[in-house]
Amino acid sequence: MPLSEFDIIAKYFGSRSARSDVSLGIGDDAAILNVPAGRKLVLAMDTVVEGVHFPSGTPAQDVGHRALAVNLSDLAAMGAEPSWMSLSLSLPEADETWLEQFARGLFALADAHKVALIGGDTVRGPLVVTIQVGGWIEPDHYLLRSGARAGDGLYVSGVPGEAAAGLALIRAHAAADRSAQHLKSRFLRPEPRVALGRALRTIASAAMDVSDGLLADLEKLCAASGCGARVQVEALPRSPAMQARFDEPTCLRYALTGGDDYELLFTVTPANEAALHAGTLAGVEVARIGTITAEPGVRCFRGDQELVLERSGYDHFALR
Amino acid sequence: MPLSEFDIIAKYFGSRSARSDVSLGIGDDAAILNVPAGRKLVLAMDTVVEGVHFPSGTPAQDVGHRALAVNLSDLAAMGAEPSWMSLSLSLPEADETWLEQFARGLFALADAHKVALIGGDTVRGPLVVTIQVGGWIEPDHYLLRSGARAGDGLYVSGVPGEAAAGLALIRAHAAADRSAQHLKSRFLRPEPRVALGRALRTIASAAMDVSDGLLADLEKLCAASGCGARVQVEALPRSPAMQARFDEPTCLRYALTGGDDYELLFTVTPANEAALHAGTLAGVEVARIGTITAEPGVRCFRGDQELVLERSGYDHFALR
Repeated sequence: MPLSEFDIIAKYFGSRSARSDVSLGIGDDAAILNVPAGRKLVLAMDTVVEGVHFPSGTPAQDVGHRALAVNLSDLAAMGAEPSWMSLSLSLPEADETWLEQFARGLFALADAHKVALIGGDTVRGPLVVTIQVGGWIEPDHYLLRSGARAGDGLYVSGVPGEAAAGLALIRAHAAADRSAQHLKSRFLRPEPRVALGRALRTIASAAMDVSDGLLADLEKLCAASGCGARVQVEALPRSPAMQARFDEPTCLRYALTGGDDYELLFTVTPANEAALHAGTLAGVEVARIGTITAEPGVRCFRGDQELVLERSGYDHFALR
Repeated sequence: MPLSEFDIIAKYFGSRSARSDVSLGIGDDAAILNVPAGRKLVLAMDTVVEGVHFPSGTPAQDVGHRALAVNLSDLAAMGAEPSWMSLSLSLPEADETWLEQFARGLFALADAHKVALIGGDTVRGPLVVTIQVGGWIEPDHYLLRSGARAGDGLYVSGVPGEAAAGLALIRAHAAADRSAQHLKSRFLRPEPRVALGRALRTIASAAMDVSDGLLADLEKLCAASGCGARVQVEALPRSPAMQARFDEPTCLRYALTGGDDYELLFTVTPANEAALHAGTLAGVEVARIGTITAEPGVRCFRGDQELVLERSGYDHFALR
């Protein structure tokens, strides 16, 4: 006998984490949350579709991790503290092994960030996962895309490009040496930079997460801020794993245009840059990769030599 | 050239309604909401899949209306005041006619309830719509499934069964006389009982919305409340439209087991029943269809004669 929706929720998605802000969790028509005093509510929603955002056959544990990670990354980019999530899970059949693994990946990350599942929907359909995450933020300190000003330093966390390199290896069914394993896991199990985002609230002038590629997202940040940027490609973090598997131009292409990194791209006023000189913040490496310019547009340089790149950001409807 | 995700959002889903509780709407990594003083946050999320929750070829305007209506219905069942929604729209191609009609249906209902679209995701994939709605509620007056007690009156709004009858006519491609039009629209364009839910906050002892069928949902309400119920079928609201198209046993089956009505099922203490004797509340007809019993289980009677019914609620994973 197939599992009912009720069985699935009870067995795999029952209430787990107790949070004082969750007044009423799963089980009624809706959930009820207590909003902490003096906080605003921050909300992000992202959807991942099998065969579009991750290859068919991706391990369920990774699907669960990644579906939440891409959402937490949006909250990280605001500097918010995550609190709760709603889960919409459309799947073709009630496959218990798949569900158990999906829940394992989802909750491992949720528990690490103390995020409570407070509701959602489980339906029969193609494999599509939508998560809404909510969190709280101090009204006077949060991060927008629009705060960058000419002269600010431009920074990125982690090693951009590795996720795109990992996806290329997954698609090519590449042999799983150590470099390949590292790159693949960067695509399948991105680490949302929540602690970094919290730390940046009082340091950064603007921030966003890198989901569509460094340059494409930088263009969005610059457009929102009414400025431009100059990127020094020699300052991009080097990836030994990428260099072990790809030639130099390919590495550069992944670093500048590969999507799915879920690192933070942020700007810092000259006065605040001293706080970052050590190169790590909240346990994450951050690299200064350029500066914000008054002149609009994003330009890339190697030393003083401007690079002209063919590139396009990831667009979900530009069928490729 | 196909529309980009950015174009779609800008053209069809740009910020429209100004609400004082929306601090930051569409366009950054996440949205920010101001929580009204002294309110709790209420959240519901529902997903509709083409071919599962609505037939392929359903007009896009109805898909937009219905996807929001089923969510607002959950908030209505709590007695909450809706405020905002996030929309995840997975669709196979950027069909402008479809998008324009979908947005028209969605926003007509959203505007009627002053609900602001504050974010979401637009992706390429099978036609799946997930909406998260959020709203506010007074901490001391809201409606749960668990508050019914023996002796309470049992009520339902509207005319249960008409939506299921309408879906049957849609599936049968039935001729569109006036009765059929009425029934089909009850499936395609359910009216969430938000005003009724608000009015019931201080009157009802328990409430839920009817999505899986009257008896199946009543069983859930009784289980949550630790009680049972006795339904008098002769007290069910009569539907001239159903009676014009279906025989009496079929009408009764739709009324008791048909899903998708999105009416409110609620219970009222004897002391509060006087407030309901007029038969309408917040402009909606409400009918007293039975009583809550101490003995567990839901039983149906015609007069003093117990009816034994074959029935099952809608279950998304019990493949039929």
